[in-house]
Amino acid sequence: YQYQEMLTNKYGEDSKLIYDLKDQGGEMLSLRYDLTVPFARYMAMANIQTIKRYHIAKVYRRDNPAMTRGRYREFYQCDFDIAGHYDPMIPDAECLRIVAEILSELKLGDFTIKVNDRRILDGIFAVCGCPGEKFRQACSAVDKLDKLTWSDVKAEMLEKGLTEESSDQIGNYVQMAGGLDLVEKLLSDEILNGNKSALAGLTDMRLLLQYLELFQITDRVQFDLSLARGLDYYTGPIFEAILLGNNDDKKERVKGETVGVGSIAGGGRYDGLVGSFHPKGKSVPCVGVSIGVERIFSIIEANIKKEKGKTRTNDTQVYVASPQKGFVEEKMKIITELWNSNIKAEMSYKKNPKMLNQMQHCEENGIPLAVIVASGELQAGTIKIRSVGSREERTVDRNKMVDELKQMIGS
Amino acid sequence: YQYQEMLTNKYGEDSKLIYDLKDQGGEMLSLRYDLTVPFARYMAMANIQTIKRYHIAKVYRRDNPAMTRGRYREFYQCDFDIAGHYDPMIPDAECLRIVAEILSELKLGDFTIKVNDRRILDGIFAVCGCPGEKFRQACSAVDKLDKLTWSDVKAEMLEKGLTEESSDQIGNYVQMAGGLDLVEKLLSDEILNGNKSALAGLTDMRLLLQYLELFQITDRVQFDLSLARGLDYYTGPIFEAILLGNNDDKKERVKGETVGVGSIAGGGRYDGLVGSFHPKGKSVPCVGVSIGVERIFSIIEANIKKEKGKTRTNDTQVYVASPQKGFVEEKMKIITELWNSNIKAEMSYKKNPKMLNQMQHCEENGIPLAVIVASGELQAGTIKIRSVGSREERTVDRNKMVDELKQMIGS
Repeated sequence: YQYQEMLTNKYGEDSKLIYDLKDQGGEMLSLRYDLTVPFARYMAMANIQTIKRYHIAKVYRRDNPAMTRGRYREFYQCDFDIAGHYDPMIPDAECLRIVAEILSELKLGDFTIKVNDRRILDGIFAVCGCPGEKFRQACSAVDKLDKLTWSDVKAEMLEKGLTEESSDQIGNYVQMAGGLDLVEKLLSDEILNGNKSALAGLTDMRLLLQYLELFQITDRVQFDLSLARGLDYYTGPIFEAILLGNNDDKKERVKGETVGVGSIAGGGRYDGLVGSFHPKGKSVPCVGVSIGVERIFSIIEANIKKEKGKTRTNDTQVYVASPQKGFVEEKMKIITELWNSNIKAEMSYKKNPKMLNQMQHCEENGIPLAVIVASGELQAGTIKIRSVGSREERTVDRNKMVDELKQMIGS
Repeated sequence: YQYQEMLTNKYGEDSKLIYDLKDQGGEMLSLRYDLTVPFARYMAMANIQTIKRYHIAKVYRRDNPAMTRGRYREFYQCDFDIAGHYDPMIPDAECLRIVAEILSELKLGDFTIKVNDRRILDGIFAVCGCPGEKFRQACSAVDKLDKLTWSDVKAEMLEKGLTEESSDQIGNYVQMAGGLDLVEKLLSDEILNGNKSALAGLTDMRLLLQYLELFQITDRVQFDLSLARGLDYYTGPIFEAILLGNNDDKKERVKGETVGVGSIAGGGRYDGLVGSFHPKGKSVPCVGVSIGVERIFSIIEANIKKEKGKTRTNDTQVYVASPQKGFVEEKMKIITELWNSNIKAEMSYKKNPKMLNQMQHCEENGIPLAVIVASGELQAGTIKIRSVGSREERTVDRNKMVDELKQMIGS
């Protein structure tokens, strides 16, 4: 659990999703909302200057769950962060490369990683006449552009006290997306490049996209000015990976040509968070990414179902069976030999199981091989090896069983 | 978290260690105390009849922590359980084989797995004149025989209301330990074998030890009548794995010749727990084991320290370095090639790091190989590969870099 006060003022509008608890000693406690804030607190408390680590663990959000889409109130995140005083955009580029590698390796289908920078957004808000104290609120409205139309987002901005003119100017900027060319265009926009914050953000964005070119992932990355991310703690580049649904997946289409089946990873730079926890306010710049584990699982499971396949939930290589009664001790001797040889083996927990049930177990659980012992073979010093899929059987010398199996397994 | 009411009446005297929490809705909540009770509840709620699974997760105990010995209030357990209506002692034997395999593979030093059976203990309590409602209290006293002398345990029994005579009789039984021979001896003890519970327990113990013989782990197992285990939910065989300290490790010696540095795994059969959660009381017999992850880590870390070694905390195979300035882009190109070839590679997050710092990083982090790029090599179309340990360097053709590295890594 987490002390409640550690979690407040960290998540912006999302704070309402924190699970609060009271312990019996009367301290106010909450369940952790993400892995980033506890990581930053750990860094500050242990006075750590550089670290690179991943962390897979549960987080809790008092949100509306949507089971079929892999949205739960208690779920796993996989976080990866790089902390330390380094040169601009080198760790950031590596984070993005890692996200691209993971999503490619998992074969989840086509995806895009949207990138933007909080400093560019803040610069846009400033030059468009949005007052400083409304930046985070404007940010939160802009972030909804992936789900809402521009007129809805504009309505929210007006509601939050931005002027019509200001909102429209912001709208012109945040609906742009592109690559290095767009960065160059904005860098030569004299209104925008006059703003210090925007200039710093755009300069870093140019560097980041150049590095991503060297890392060979620019085809996966889009500089998207509508990306804002909800959380308060970001101070520089922000990113979000979106899986692109099929065009025939009409239910998922909300706007535009290809619509994401949803965000499955997100992150960014948070240079101020460690300092906010440090007793002397000493800061350590950090950049990191969070990957939604259940969302990925739900997509992988859906893909397997689509291909009418089955998820294998075990690694068993060999099943030890017998068609006759009274072979439990013999099977135990055999399975011990297999275990001793690092072969993953299983047998029935029943003393005299039926042959049909044993073979069904292999088929249902995708176990590729079965070793079959019976009185005839036992006397002859042999044993049968059966390929479960093809149902072919081969009688081999009992002393060569382990070697034969290892060859068939390919280990 | 867990609902508080789900956790009460499950852990006997240990219940006082449960972390209780109150959520904002006013429901009484607790942090989970172990993985067994939530597993049994899940089985009952999902109406599952057979399952075999492992689970690694955190549990919480309001106990006195002892960091150096790997005892924490929040710690990881690794549980393995087999549930289903099966024939006696087959799953139980497999659980013990798995514990023996894990502890052997981890090379933690010599260990013993103590086994006993709650039915044997209950039988002993009964024939020694202990009233039924005091069985669990007597059990809890007997369980302390590994830490306290018999006279201390006896004192606790008397305090709990057992008679002098009763306690002494129990003392005679529970101080015995042995193997199959002891089981046979107790089976022919006419006072004990007249008790139904003891007879059932001893008959199963004989079968269990026979199976363990076939599983080739009897040298690791001892039938120890003083093993009682604290938790209420066990109904049959119980077991506990104890690491045996060195004889020169005098601080750890409390009694006897070889003394355990502590229990690192424990478990047993709990046939009634699923039924206690099932709406219709439908039971599923279960047997399982819990392994203490932090205790194992603390032992492994102490062993590494003793050998003056260092724990490597990364898998990096190749570091990409340059002695010259202005090579960040070139290093990025190289590292991308390595990543694309599934080589685990790292480079500095600084644009122009010092060569000395780069090599120090390799040495401190145990990275075996470094690829070194510089202007001379770049022009010649070559690159240097350095073995960090031996400091030997070899210049290879730039196009053959990946193949050379793969050969050196042996992948």
